[in-house]
Amino acid sequence: MNERHRRLILLTQYLVAHPLTQVSLTELSQVFGVAKSTLSEDLLDVKDTFDIQGLGRIDSQVGVQGGIRYVPMIERGNVRKSLNEWSQALAEPSRMMTDGFLYMTDLLFNPGWIDPMGQLLAHRFRDVAVQFVATVETKGIPLALACARFLGVEMVLLRRDNRLSEGSSLSINYLSGSSRRIQSMTLSRRSPVRGSRVLFVDDFMKAGGTAKAAQDLLSDFDAQVVGVGVLVATVKPQQKLVDEYSSCLEWTEFEGQAVKPSDWAWQLGLDAPTAKGDE
Amino acid sequence: MNERHRRLILLTQYLVAHPLTQVSLTELSQVFGVAKSTLSEDLLDVKDTFDIQGLGRIDSQVGVQGGIRYVPMIERGNVRKSLNEWSQALAEPSRMMTDGFLYMTDLLFNPGWIDPMGQLLAHRFRDVAVQFVATVETKGIPLALACARFLGVEMVLLRRDNRLSEGSSLSINYLSGSSRRIQSMTLSRRSPVRGSRVLFVDDFMKAGGTAKAAQDLLSDFDAQVVGVGVLVATVKPQQKLVDEYSSCLEWTEFEGQAVKPSDWAWQLGLDAPTAKGDE
Repeated sequence: MNERHRRLILLTQYLVAHPLTQVSLTELSQVFGVAKSTLSEDLLDVKDTFDIQGLGRIDSQVGVQGGIRYVPMIERGNVRKSLNEWSQALAEPSRMMTDGFLYMTDLLFNPGWIDPMGQLLAHRFRDVAVQFVATVETKGIPLALACARFLGVEMVLLRRDNRLSEGSSLSINYLSGSSRRIQSMTLSRRSPVRGSRVLFVDDFMKAGGTAKAAQDLLSDFDAQVVGVGVLVATVKPQQKLVDEYSSCLEWTEFEGQAVKPSDWAWQLGLDAPTAKGDE
Repeated sequence: MNERHRRLILLTQYLVAHPLTQVSLTELSQVFGVAKSTLSEDLLDVKDTFDIQGLGRIDSQVGVQGGIRYVPMIERGNVRKSLNEWSQALAEPSRMMTDGFLYMTDLLFNPGWIDPMGQLLAHRFRDVAVQFVATVETKGIPLALACARFLGVEMVLLRRDNRLSEGSSLSINYLSGSSRRIQSMTLSRRSPVRGSRVLFVDDFMKAGGTAKAAQDLLSDFDAQVVGVGVLVATVKPQQKLVDEYSSCLEWTEFEGQAVKPSDWAWQLGLDAPTAKGDE
């Protein structure tokens, strides 16, 4: 096989398989067994192709700590497809549970379903310098993990109760708007979240009591909630307990079981990729 | 830019970004705007390069439902690096909590740390036709999700208690070997796990009581546990409540806080990739 072809395939594979990970040209030239100058030429081809097709950008950093890093672009066709699938699935009458809940557990823990929604929220909050994604156990965990992965940060879990294995911790009690009962939320004092910028993510929001409590608990760690992202929010009450939030889907309970994509999410799926700077 | 170069980059990007997903050559030829015969030639180059470098295989299926699918190979260098990092991190004295626990929460919810371990377990159980990965809330969830993603299946969550939003369910009570208290585990009757082959995954195993209880609960759904995989298992008691299990790491509590990779896991990181059929 043509050596150049082999190198382009290897370089592309490496970058796509290691998104958001900085690697130096020196390291790569050793891995592939080629000169750095050759590699730089190959890299230009990959960079141009990714630019033109809207597949993401390749950041270069010069200097001793320098290297390259692939930042994938959200796949708009995938976003539309996934939003449609979620809307249809959540409209099934059998998902309507007592007391105003939607049964979603089977979909929440399916990587093929939840990962695109995590990517969507990661894209929504890509410009607010998120350092941690936080969620409260349990059903928001897969969404929060997917979102953290696409942002290249780690996740912080707020527990429902205190565990021996967590050491000493801070707790908060609050009234959950949707279940109308007193809930508690706790975070280990050794959590690395202290003083950082946090994106709070959850699977479902009705009144926003959980998001508000998370904000309060995190503020005891001097951490600032810079965004709130959820999979499904109910249209009513319109006034939530947190000022701002973004939901992928909206549920209009009083109109049968209508679930539809939020305007911003749907718009994102429609926007044409721009050659540069969009991601 | 050379058209062939552009196509090879696009094809490689597509396959690596959509692992374990079947796509037809017709679809791909439309996406890239090239003839199917041209695409087939390009595919051979990608296939050969991946084969030679041990990056995974490309399955082809002929016929009307035919298409191609990229099955990534585990990255052995990554496995070794990750096992070493885990061993070092878990040996920090400050992680030793009261009552024989290790504080691992910060690492369990960090995609960069947990994903390679999920891939390791997925590789371990790649030949037993797993249909679902199950775990019990909460700390095993990221590992189970990562494992499910690499196996291309979905995850089933065993809850600690009964929720309104889950509808009717089956429960089991059991004595946890490590916390020495009665725990319960519950699964919604509408879980899709019925009659299927399940891999049970958890973050920590001491006596194996949780894994045993999961096996019992799943058997009420006519589901068969075909494997048990955990991140860390204690060396003692040597006799666990489940017959067989695979742990990525072993913890010898009585010898200070020695945590080391399991033999099978370390060996996997050392094995040289074979040109074909290893994955």
